[in-house]
Amino acid sequence: MRITRGFQKHPAGSVLIEFGDTKVLCAASVTEGVPRWRKGSGLGWLTAEYAMLPSATNTRSDRESVKGRISGRTHEISRLIGRSLRACIDLRALGENTIAIDCDVLQADGGTRTAAITGAYVALADAVTWLGAQGKLLDPKPLSGKVAAVSVGVVDGRVRLDLPYEEDSRAEVDANVVATDAGTLIEVQGTGEGATFSRATLDVMLDMAMAGIAQLVALQTEALAAPYPGELPG
Amino acid sequence: MRITRGFQKHPAGSVLIEFGDTKVLCAASVTEGVPRWRKGSGLGWLTAEYAMLPSATNTRSDRESVKGRISGRTHEISRLIGRSLRACIDLRALGENTIAIDCDVLQADGGTRTAAITGAYVALADAVTWLGAQGKLLDPKPLSGKVAAVSVGVVDGRVRLDLPYEEDSRAEVDANVVATDAGTLIEVQGTGEGATFSRATLDVMLDMAMAGIAQLVALQTEALAAPYPGELPG
Amino acid sequence: MRITRGFQKHPAGSVLIEFGDTKVLCAASVTEGVPRWRKGSGLGWLTAEYAMLPSATNTRSDRESVKGRISGRTHEISRLIGRSLRACIDLRALGENTIAIDCDVLQADGGTRTAAITGAYVALADAVTWLGAQGKLLDPKPLSGKVAAVSVGVVDGRVRLDLPYEEDSRAEVDANVVATDAGTLIEVQGTGEGATFSRATLDVMLDMAMAGIAQLVALQTEALAAPYPGELPG
Amino acid sequence: MRITRGFQKHPAGSVLIEFGDTKVLCAASVTEGVPRWRKGSGLGWLTAEYAMLPSATNTRSDRESVKGRISGRTHEISRLIGRSLRACIDLRALGENTIAIDCDVLQADGGTRTAAITGAYVALADAVTWLGAQGKLLDPKPLSGKVAAVSVGVVDGRVRLDLPYEEDSRAEVDANVVATDAGTLIEVQGTGEGATFSRATLDVMLDMAMAGIAQLVALQTEALAAPYPGELPG
Amino acid sequence: MRITRGFQKHPAGSVLIEFGDTKVLCAASVTEGVPRWRKGSGLGWLTAEYAMLPSATNTRSDRESVKGRISGRTHEISRLIGRSLRACIDLRALGENTIAIDCDVLQADGGTRTAAITGAYVALADAVTWLGAQGKLLDPKPLSGKVAAVSVGVVDGRVRLDLPYEEDSRAEVDANVVATDAGTLIEVQGTGEGATFSRATLDVMLDMAMAGIAQLVALQTEALAAPYPGELPG
Amino acid sequence: MRITRGFQKHPAGSVLIEFGDTKVLCAASVTEGVPRWRKGSGLGWLTAEYAMLPSATNTRSDRESVKGRISGRTHEISRLIGRSLRACIDLRALGENTIAIDCDVLQADGGTRTAAITGAYVALADAVTWLGAQGKLLDPKPLSGKVAAVSVGVVDGRVRLDLPYEEDSRAEVDANVVATDAGTLIEVQGTGEGATFSRATLDVMLDMAMAGIAQLVALQTEALAAPYPGELPG
Repeated sequence: MRITRGFQKHPAGSVLIEFGDTKVLCAASVTEGVPRWRKGSGLGWLTAEYAMLPSATNTRSDRESVKGRISGRTHEISRLIGRSLRACIDLRALGENTIAIDCDVLQADGGTRTAAITGAYVALADAVTWLGAQGKLLDPKPLSGKVAAVSVGVVDGRVRLDLPYEEDSRAEVDANVVATDAGTLIEVQGTGEGATFSRATLDVMLDMAMAGIAQLVALQTEALAAPYPGELPG
Repeated sequence: MRITRGFQKHPAGSVLIEFGDTKVLCAASVTEGVPRWRKGSGLGWLTAEYAMLPSATNTRSDRESVKGRISGRTHEISRLIGRSLRACIDLRALGENTIAIDCDVLQADGGTRTAAITGAYVALADAVTWLGAQGKLLDPKPLSGKVAAVSVGVVDGRVRLDLPYEEDSRAEVDANVVATDAGTLIEVQGTGEGATFSRATLDVMLDMAMAGIAQLVALQTEALAAPYPGELPG
Repeated sequence: MRITRGFQKHPAGSVLIEFGDTKVLCAASVTEGVPRWRKGSGLGWLTAEYAMLPSATNTRSDRESVKGRISGRTHEISRLIGRSLRACIDLRALGENTIAIDCDVLQADGGTRTAAITGAYVALADAVTWLGAQGKLLDPKPLSGKVAAVSVGVVDGRVRLDLPYEEDSRAEVDANVVATDAGTLIEVQGTGEGATFSRATLDVMLDMAMAGIAQLVALQTEALAAPYPGELPG
Repeated sequence: MRITRGFQKHPAGSVLIEFGDTKVLCAASVTEGVPRWRKGSGLGWLTAEYAMLPSATNTRSDRESVKGRISGRTHEISRLIGRSLRACIDLRALGENTIAIDCDVLQADGGTRTAAITGAYVALADAVTWLGAQGKLLDPKPLSGKVAAVSVGVVDGRVRLDLPYEEDSRAEVDANVVATDAGTLIEVQGTGEGATFSRATLDVMLDMAMAGIAQLVALQTEALAAPYPGELPG
Repeated sequence: MRITRGFQKHPAGSVLIEFGDTKVLCAASVTEGVPRWRKGSGLGWLTAEYAMLPSATNTRSDRESVKGRISGRTHEISRLIGRSLRACIDLRALGENTIAIDCDVLQADGGTRTAAITGAYVALADAVTWLGAQGKLLDPKPLSGKVAAVSVGVVDGRVRLDLPYEEDSRAEVDANVVATDAGTLIEVQGTGEGATFSRATLDVMLDMAMAGIAQLVALQTEALAAPYPGELPG
Repeated sequence: MRITRGFQKHPAGSVLIEFGDTKVLCAASVTEGVPRWRKGSGLGWLTAEYAMLPSATNTRSDRESVKGRISGRTHEISRLIGRSLRACIDLRALGENTIAIDCDVLQADGGTRTAAITGAYVALADAVTWLGAQGKLLDPKPLSGKVAAVSVGVVDGRVRLDLPYEEDSRAEVDANVVATDAGTLIEVQGTGEGATFSRATLDVMLDMAMAGIAQLVALQTEALAAPYPGELPG
């Protein structure tokens, strides 16, 4: 796994995360104002959008902007990323401003949503640092912890971490787990793909997921310890 | 909880499920043919759509057909219902035909998606019986087991089953669990709503969910034991 | 014909109307504000939306929210319901508030639009009573009369009232008539379906329609004479 | 009223109809094939689309193609025109081909839908002649009669034919009547605009409408008696 | 080429331009306000929309409002017309008001976009005169010059002006040139259609285009020298 | 300027082109079949889509898939890229297959469309090589020459090549030129941005553009001379 900070120059945080052959570009942009339903609350907001380049997949996929609508899968993952990151940030600190997370998959080989969450956290951390440097935070430390995510699957009856696409597509059970550096859970999604699974299998999957997340958090910590590469956005 | 079979006369299966103040109309319609990507496979398909009447909610909600697009939430729940029911049916038995599940919420007071799955299973069972009576099944018993679903939440630090809307909207943790009559899992979705949760809490939630599902399965069994009310669709 | 008031608990008026095998759920919800073009006028508004559940028809119909657009037929009927009910209410009494009428067909067997109007009037009357009880009416009696509707058709050369679907689909002439309890007309729509018709036939159709409407008004009056079932919405 | 045939060179029939300050361009184009639901029937089809140029109205109206959706009013009128013309043509004569009627309002001053029907009939007659000349008709005389339409309104308590926009917009009752040269009805649509009306008023309106339609039919006959202006489309 | 001013009565300027068999109706409507991104600037705006009637082309084309989206070609031409006319007007003179240009092709036979620009300039000039007469201009002469456009093509190796559709569709190179009465360029678009072209060819095309534009400007001047036909819009 | 081939592993050609601070990912994917209107012709097709990541721009831009429609600008550039590349390839060589070009802007700082064309040519060349290696070309050398593009602008009265965004946004005249390695033109688009320009200025712009394109072609040649980095797609 590799995390490259400062991949783009415009957003307040921009991270390229590579995970096997999966590459996701995660950006955190600060925009003024909040959605209408939140106006006047004094609170900020964090929203996320996930998308895949047509050329990212094994067979070229249609462009959702051309089709004129977003698929259910895209909707679902965008919402998952948003929920996961909102669990670690105190939105009061932003005032009525929004952090927009964009996760664009440049190359897909399984685990794109969990890579997106893990990379997006680092971009978010950089955006928060930038906001602090601009004097725009009402609370100097709005992040309550780190957030990372892994996928776990059962293939041929064995539990495995972070399946590449070829194995993922024939997994009997598939789970995505989002957790914090404190080891608490944010989201657990386990699905039998045409099969069912026992509580015991779920427990093994969760054990393996938590161990994987601990490793990812270590990599996030290491990546964020380095100085910001290049100049900070204006 | 109350299950009324044969609520509508046209679909092969039609169930009104009432769960506290939540009322969901679940229909299973048999249509010829399968989606394009499945043509020529010889396999059938099962698909599901979930929707809410504008008048079902406390405050009237906008009609998605008028807005011209389906929300992420609607997409997500429709996909969940479809996945859950596909886990209990052998689609080879249908030949190249489709069962379309429609879950329309007539009144909402929490737990609409889990009520929808629980009711839709009964409608599906009736549709399968109807298909058998029509001599249209390649395998006489395509259902491998019953499927039911519950929601579990943590409110004010206590784990609770099937929260009504007022409590659900302030739950700290929210989980939906889909399982079979054999006690195996089909889907587990647990989400911290602005909070995180421990493995221990997840375990308590799952225990309570499995107990709730056992009760629902008993009710499904009882409902399906009665003769079909009224005449079967043509 | 059967009228069940208070079918849903959230809207200010909610009526299930059953007419042969046709079942329409009619809700009248009160929402704050008026459409943009009416702002500042001091006047209220009444709008209506009609829809059919996919499972309501003999053969499952596609969901308009999924198709992303509303059919011409849906548009036309929604507009007809709105016009018909606006003819009997003094919108000045509402202040700048809107009554949204939702007519959702749960089961279709001919005459869904006329059943919808007849049921929606009762839901509207309940919503007006509720508004009065809340002290939100500028005029205590904004309804100038009752409104009901019937369809009339010519099948095999004979004029018939309220055709079921099987006969309606082979009618040579089809008319929908909306009228008041005072016997005056609100809307007359007569259409030759691949045939033409004489003034004399139109007269017979209108006679029969007016007689049918008088019966419906009697049923509305009876239904509204009973006390409201269950508790009124908050 | 003025009817100009052959206004455009490409369609098989093209008529500019002027009615007071209302100007509608009506074209009848022949296209191969029929809609999917009609394939294999051996029958032809006739469809109609109505639209208004943004610059046709007193205040510029938004372009429906830019808004990305067609209004309910546009839908309704398109369907009315199609139904009206299908009442006078034997679609078996076309084989599996379609006549597409396009009515585009170049300038609007009341009565656009009835002018459209009246003009479209003439364009249709020219298209049928053209089809005959091309040897493409299975029956040499597929038109069973002429079709024309008028609007009638009640303004300040008086029944009036073909109201210009200024009067139409304050009419208490508004009716559109489509009829044949034989004096039989195809469509009657009478609407109280915030008012109701008696059977007696409806009768006066219908009398006046039928007289107006007789005059229009005479003008159509006269226009069609002249030779086709310019060369026929290829 | 023929220019008919005052073709419609509602817009401030309305011109029918005929160019061979191409007929384009160009309207300039004045509307209050400016797009959101321009509010508060004190500046006016000019926008343009281009469309083709379905019946305008050799084979009937689908209606973009029915398809629910505008084609790339329509977008491109609309933007070109807007840019071209904005090059000749000082938008400060309008205050925060918008001139909306609508170019609707009634009949197409090549060169519709250049005819549209040439006709739209005349409609714009009339709209500006009307604005002046209404006392609504902050600067009495906001137009800095006339604007006209031609197309030039290379067919069978020869450079030709204003190709009709049949020749245009087999042109090897196609260019559209927009220029002013002072002989300066506003827009040059030259495209090899499956072929490439030399600088020398481009020069010949530009020479021919500039000569054609000079002729068009003379015709515009002549058309505008006549008094406005009929009464000015209210 | 930097060209990185083989940036993605799935498409037959994948190039990251960097041009100042502009970064565009250009992919060429081979898909079976051709658009409907081309079926049965025996000819292949080449199509192109251009898009910008929301995080690519100085201020985050809205995602077109979420808005549900593509802007006019996106449409225009996609069409330009497709036309430009079709000018250099003999589509007969592909049989009835399509090459889909995707140009996704990862970071924008002026000149994204010309960078896209220049990079896409290299991706196309790699895809053609791959097709040849797979034995799927009917003609071994379908590319007739190299294609590159530059933008030229007039800023503060001086003609300049490849303006960065800050200068581009205040250019008085802006031109995009697409040409071949043989020095012939494919596309010339020159636009006065609120200003007009003389033939003499156009000539200076074209001189400078042709010189720039010669340099780009040299870089393309150099990039393509190197062996393909990494393994070729399956």
